[in-house]
Amino acid sequence: MARKLFPTPTDCETAFYDALERADLKLMMAVWADEAAIVCIHPQGPRLAGMTAIRESFADLFSHGPNGTVQVSELRNQLSQTLAIHNVYETFLVKNNPAANNAPPILATNVYLLTPNGWRMTLHHASVAPRGTVAEEQGVTRILH
Amino acid sequence: MARKLFPTPTDCETAFYDALERADLKLMMAVWADEAAIVCIHPQGPRLAGMTAIRESFADLFSHGPNGTVQVSELRNQLSQTLAIHNVYETFLVKNNPAANNAPPILATNVYLLTPNGWRMTLHHASVAPRGTVAEEQGVTRILH
Repeated sequence: MARKLFPTPTDCETAFYDALERADLKLMMAVWADEAAIVCIHPQGPRLAGMTAIRESFADLFSHGPNGTVQVSELRNQLSQTLAIHNVYETFLVKNNPAANNAPPILATNVYLLTPNGWRMTLHHASVAPRGTVAEEQGVTRILH
Repeated sequence: MARKLFPTPTDCETAFYDALERADLKLMMAVWADEAAIVCIHPQGPRLAGMTAIRESFADLFSHGPNGTVQVSELRNQLSQTLAIHNVYETFLVKNNPAANNAPPILATNVYLLTPNGWRMTLHHASVAPRGTVAEEQGVTRILH
């Protein structure tokens, strides 16, 4: 597969969640920077560092194929010339499994680095948010779930 | 209290963990950037956004005074001219409570921004790591706990 080029951090983030929805390992690994320092923390998981450990974790996650959709919301971001930090809520909707759709949302911090090949992900840190979580956004407090 | 000046992201991080150990709310709030976009996620917690919500959470956490020490290890960092991202393990040692010292480590992503007042924290995302967690560090896999 030709290497993907992501002209903005948001393009890279869109590809990350597309890959997650499609269980597309090639696209997922094209999202990540080819750097030893990359870090991935799945919800309730340990810290995975480096391409090999991260690839293995997604290969395992994707082994049963696409499983539903993920909705990304409540973006808060910070940007410098070469680094971007996004913090978002992820809401998973699992196919044919209404029970799983009662799961709490996930909070994710995503870091993107401007490389010679465009923006790439260098860190994904996800954790389970409490059910009924409150998002304070621009002074407005509202219940997400 | 005079505003603190942190000439590097590491100075700011050291002050963050000093404030946490000492239960020093003034120092803790001097660590944070005075920006609406600041975000704090405590382990298993919701996303707290903005100075008021973050101050309240630390005031609550510190209400019983200092409670032990925190050891910070396994730093992985990324730096641009105006943003720095640190990912670390936090190990808490609670005074007079051996049972609490069996707790799993915490993984934290800390983001620092270069402001006119030096480096300040803009994001703290902490989550519980599995007990017996493995840190892969420069190709060397080792057990932390």
